Amino acid sequence: MPSASFNPLVSRLSPPPVPSVFAWGRAYDGASGPLIDLSQAVPGYPPHPDMLAWLGEAAASRAYAGYGPIEGEDMLRGAYAAEMAEIYGAPVIAQNIHITSGCNQAFMAAVMAIAGAGDRVALTDPFYFNQETTLAMLGIGRELLPLDAADGFVPRLDEVRATLKKGVKAIALVTPNNPTGAVYPDPLLKDIFELCREAGVWLILDETYRDFLPAGERPHGLLSIAGWEENLILLYSFSKSFCIPGHRLGAVTAGERTVAEIAKVMDNLQICAPRAPQVAVARAIPALKQWRDANRAEILARANALRAVMAGLPAWKMDSLGAYFAFIRHPFDDRKSAEVAEMLARKAGVVCIPGAYFGERQEAYLRFAFANADAGTIATLADRLGGFTP
Amino acid sequence: MPSASFNPLVSRLSPPPVPSVFAWGRAYDGASGPLIDLSQAVPGYPPHPDMLAWLGEAAASRAYAGYGPIEGEDMLRGAYAAEMAEIYGAPVIAQNIHITSGCNQAFMAAVMAIAGAGDRVALTDPFYFNQETTLAMLGIGRELLPLDAADGFVPRLDEVRATLKKGVKAIALVTPNNPTGAVYPDPLLKDIFELCREAGVWLILDETYRDFLPAGERPHGLLSIAGWEENLILLYSFSKSFCIPGHRLGAVTAGERTVAEIAKVMDNLQICAPRAPQVAVARAIPALKQWRDANRAEILARANALRAVMAGLPAWKMDSLGAYFAFIRHPFDDRKSAEVAEMLARKAGVVCIPGAYFGERQEAYLRFAFANADAGTIATLADRLGGFTP
Ligand SMILES: Cc1ncc(COP(=O)(O)O)c(C=O)c1O
Ligand SMILES: Cc1ncc(COP(=O)(O)O)c(C=O)c1O
Repeated sequence: MPSASFNPLVSRLSPPPVPSVFAWGRAYDGASGPLIDLSQAVPGYPPHPDMLAWLGEAAASRAYAGYGPIEGEDMLRGAYAAEMAEIYGAPVIAQNIHITSGCNQAFMAAVMAIAGAGDRVALTDPFYFNQETTLAMLGIGRELLPLDAADGFVPRLDEVRATLKKGVKAIALVTPNNPTGAVYPDPLLKDIFELCREAGVWLILDETYRDFLPAGERPHGLLSIAGWEENLILLYSFSKSFCIPGHRLGAVTAGERTVAEIAKVMDNLQICAPRAPQVAVARAIPALKQWRDANRAEILARANALRAVMAGLPAWKMDSLGAYFAFIRHPFDDRKSAEVAEMLARKAGVVCIPGAYFGERQEAYLRFAFANADAGTIATLADRLGGFTP
Repeated sequence: MPSASFNPLVSRLSPPPVPSVFAWGRAYDGASGPLIDLSQAVPGYPPHPDMLAWLGEAAASRAYAGYGPIEGEDMLRGAYAAEMAEIYGAPVIAQNIHITSGCNQAFMAAVMAIAGAGDRVALTDPFYFNQETTLAMLGIGRELLPLDAADGFVPRLDEVRATLKKGVKAIALVTPNNPTGAVYPDPLLKDIFELCREAGVWLILDETYRDFLPAGERPHGLLSIAGWEENLILLYSFSKSFCIPGHRLGAVTAGERTVAEIAKVMDNLQICAPRAPQVAVARAIPALKQWRDANRAEILARANALRAVMAGLPAWKMDSLGAYFAFIRHPFDDRKSAEVAEMLARKAGVVCIPGAYFGERQEAYLRFAFANADAGTIATLADRLGGFTP
């Protein structure tokens, strides 16, 4: 009997990276102190008590038990649009917003709305791994825009031009970046956007870590450019900012036509995002402003703690640091990043993600999601890394 | 400036059908009494109060705020596997279960795990529209297995054989069926499954409406066939049975290798299903058995109420009735089903879905989701339909 076969685009993918990294941490014997988890990006503090109360209240309500609007609850689309308008100083309305079940889904739905199998989309190298595997499983070709430590892991315009010549449908960027932490400056983003517009190519910006930029910094001015709706798609996650990844909420900001195309995808993909968390987050957006600002400050303090620790470890080179992540060159030139990360977890109890998970060229690196750990814990990395050999 | 373009596989899809049907209902002036909504399948009774309390409790907990396992919470995978084992009298274990954000997502993730652009998958005609649009947007070719009123809208083996000869990767069936309500008998399913096995083709069964079969009827014996894991994928929704579509939960039952492939897709698609509802449903599966049985009886009573009403309306032919839906031949041979449905909503305040939404050949039909309305309301259809002309 012939056996039924799988989709080779999926079967050739490695198993999801994060669970395998967790397994290394479970093999640690505790000899150097408690496990320090700098792997999956999750804020190392709990959600605000009011957030939990609102989540509970909405989930217990009959009002949100039924199917909801595909594009999201009016309340949340309105509240998030108002926040976007304030952050960017530009007119963003509820009709520009599509709520999704997290930002991975926002990326997938946005990409499907604009590209299909056989098309090509550009990512940076290093990339955020789920963006790369999403393209791969959809049969969408991937072009890589190489980044360099020497440029602070920020794209170069000549490389952007070269990528556009290859005939991509979109360039997807992540700023503040995962894995490097690099923050792309506004003038650069404007130049890249103009190049995309000239070429009739979409610019997709994943801004999951936007809330961890220093206070008062406008991330960019793209939403003030007339006609941005024709080429621009912004993605966001409520997971990190509100500490609620388990509730699965994200958002797309785009032109109304793009929102309508994404709604068609979303109807098939999951009808609508879960409703109760949408209602709770709509309340939290205006109400938890101060709490979010305090977290922003806390995470900046963690970045400073890491900077201080790494200064005392000259063999480890912190080539990039920002918002949520540091991209660190390990001292073991002859070893693969996965070997180093595995041994670091097993022997020193520090769990992080191997550079190679973000691109083949990144064997020299490890990604530390430093925002997961408080400053005191980060200080102990001096001993953990100082005495480590893989 | 060239404008950036959309994915033609998505842009050529019609807007999602349910919101457009709701719009017809909003145009009704109330002259014949309250609007009767027989469109989207949603039980016309609220969730159990304990269900709401558990949803609220889990959502308010810090324990489920973080990311969860991709495949689903152990608690729910275990509880649902135990229920499957009991219903089917066959060994189903937690490792056979992948939790998803609803059954549309279960279908999409399962299909992506086994087929990509350029492959072909067979659906019945009529089909469940989201299955058809999911294939279309993924660039997966669709083969249609024609069903006939004369056969009770149940597939014929010769047609199944003909479809398999066309080289499909899977046949996807829905039983109890949406839109017809037809329940596929066990021996037929067994024959179809054997044909699929011989051909090395997957059989995907969407059993969203399984809980509305008459009590004590085992839906089929496929899970007792040795090696079922090689070819079979079962899909389920918690939306209808627990009245919680807004919380977005469904499940896949499959072999462990298939679950592992689906996990790769799900990691990209949304990392994990929302956690709090998983914990609540895990409690509800054993606890709300009696309540679910009472609903099953209630929905059977509604089916009988519809049968009685339709017997008094000889111009309207109820060609099929079961579980949740009736597929009804309207008396206006020269009119398109969308026109009839629109006028029925606007003029008579009865909202239903046009047959053509389930396949071009279905212009003669309307789908009534009778389970949405109580028996008293269903009785009033005598007047509403009796006096209606489009
Ligand atoms: C850049 C980036 N995008 C998207 C996501 C996914 O976030 P969500 O939890 O909203 O799906 C992450 C999570 O780590 C991320 O780092
Ligand atoms: C046959 C069928 N499958 C799947 C679904 C989607 O259900 P869920 O709410 O679990 O996504 C429906 C909903 O109407 C359905 O009728």
